[in-house]
Amino acid sequence: MLLMQQSESRMVRIVEVGPRDGLQGLSSQVPATVRAKLIEKLVDAGLTHIEVGSFVSPKKVPAMANSDQVVKQIKRKPGVVYSALTPNIKGFEQALAVGVSEVAVFSSASEHFCQENINCSIAESFRRFEPIMTAATKHNIPVRGYISCVMGCPYEGDISSKKVVEVCREMKQAGCYELSLGDTIGVGTPKKARELFNAVVGVVPIGCISAHFHNTYGQALANLYGMVVDGLSVIDSATAGLGGCPYAPGASGNISTEDVVYMLNGLGIETGIDMQQLLAASDYICKYIGIASKSNTGQALAAKKQ
Amino acid sequence: MLLMQQSESRMVRIVEVGPRDGLQGLSSQVPATVRAKLIEKLVDAGLTHIEVGSFVSPKKVPAMANSDQVVKQIKRKPGVVYSALTPNIKGFEQALAVGVSEVAVFSSASEHFCQENINCSIAESFRRFEPIMTAATKHNIPVRGYISCVMGCPYEGDISSKKVVEVCREMKQAGCYELSLGDTIGVGTPKKARELFNAVVGVVPIGCISAHFHNTYGQALANLYGMVVDGLSVIDSATAGLGGCPYAPGASGNISTEDVVYMLNGLGIETGIDMQQLLAASDYICKYIGIASKSNTGQALAAKKQ
Repeated sequence: MLLMQQSESRMVRIVEVGPRDGLQGLSSQVPATVRAKLIEKLVDAGLTHIEVGSFVSPKKVPAMANSDQVVKQIKRKPGVVYSALTPNIKGFEQALAVGVSEVAVFSSASEHFCQENINCSIAESFRRFEPIMTAATKHNIPVRGYISCVMGCPYEGDISSKKVVEVCREMKQAGCYELSLGDTIGVGTPKKARELFNAVVGVVPIGCISAHFHNTYGQALANLYGMVVDGLSVIDSATAGLGGCPYAPGASGNISTEDVVYMLNGLGIETGIDMQQLLAASDYICKYIGIASKSNTGQALAAKKQ
Repeated sequence: MLLMQQSESRMVRIVEVGPRDGLQGLSSQVPATVRAKLIEKLVDAGLTHIEVGSFVSPKKVPAMANSDQVVKQIKRKPGVVYSALTPNIKGFEQALAVGVSEVAVFSSASEHFCQENINCSIAESFRRFEPIMTAATKHNIPVRGYISCVMGCPYEGDISSKKVVEVCREMKQAGCYELSLGDTIGVGTPKKARELFNAVVGVVPIGCISAHFHNTYGQALANLYGMVVDGLSVIDSATAGLGGCPYAPGASGNISTEDVVYMLNGLGIETGIDMQQLLAASDYICKYIGIASKSNTGQALAAKKQ
């Protein structure tokens, strides 16, 4: 009954991570013009917060090379947040130079995963983004914080909510305005997801928490539903369910924006997203890469048209 | 918090519908020996309630021909329910002759779908199964009732909970011991699913309601989660997410047993099912048909083994 009361005139903001998380694992690079076009199509669909790329070493993540060109080529729409991952001050400066509206830094709730992913301890990851926080404050750029492996790690197995809460507290104190809880390998289930969310609410304002779930075990939407009942108001997703994580064995794609929007529509929760235009964006990138959409809603609506 | 209390020593019974709903839409028939072997493997995995086939016209549903041979060939395990769909008294008698433990009859919450699926009105569908109910009572065979299109119809669109409740009331009064609510085209979302469940609880005991959801729009597990929170204790699912419905345009497979079991494990709810043996059953039938598992959990666990 809680949900029914809450759902009246509620909104959930979707952070579209397809152009970054969805494409970063590809072995071949999608040209900057195509990535910029995808982003424009996502904005046409009503998305107001899009992660457009990653300012990382092109040797480490070749698919994210030329993220500066992507940002430069986007025909911007006022009010839309174009954010980018920036692992270090060099990346931040590159992102700043092309005028991103927001940056993101990342750490992990798993020591082992942190080492594998960014070659440092969790504590060291905080020290690494200190200069970014300083520079971001100076330039008035909001910083989003990603925490990976919040419900499990490919190396360590189970991760406790206590550990996630600790990392959240430190990232919030470091200056991140919003934290994105990543179930990087998609192992979480709804009870654990809700317990985690309610634990994090103790150290981060409820409206500053996002869920970033991969659908590896098919649980992502059920997990999101449980958290939405409890008041979650920001969700990371990727059109067509693109993606995976190059450093997480067995990680499959992000939960698809289409399936999330379909559910939220059914719950009477506003997203501002037009499904048909979202499908046009999905279709554009899937055709370019040469894959089928991994979104059930995307597949079902495409089949209906035929 | 309700769920956490409820989940202590709770059980959910899974009705495995793969050998019937999962295979009935295939254009070529899987031999009876393979279907029987699949059923034995599912029982080895711990499933205690399996829909083994359908005693319908082989002209109408060629893939279900020889269901009598399937039943005859199964090496039975005591305590396991081997059920079959029986649309008419002829089918019931055939099923009885080979010794099924239970039969199922079906109707719909949509007049138009009922006409397309079984060529009669909803009222006429009740009259059709009257002789089955009489014969079943005589032979002490429990009868399960399926209701299709409970959250939407490919022809009529939205279906009201009121209509579903009416049909449930009549099927219960007719003598069905358990009702299976079918989201045949997978259009439901969690709020609607929970509202429907709570409405049906008004006319059917809560323990006698099952949810039979197709995953067309990726919503099935989220819907099931919401209903499990509200006390659902029976779920229909198909190994590997097999299936679809030959009379429902755009219908995709049933929610996979693997994804359901993974979620219930995470909720601390007992199913008695061994995931590895379930995957062996899934692998057996997928290899025979020549398809990949549609279960996310199935795919993820298979990838982990490699």
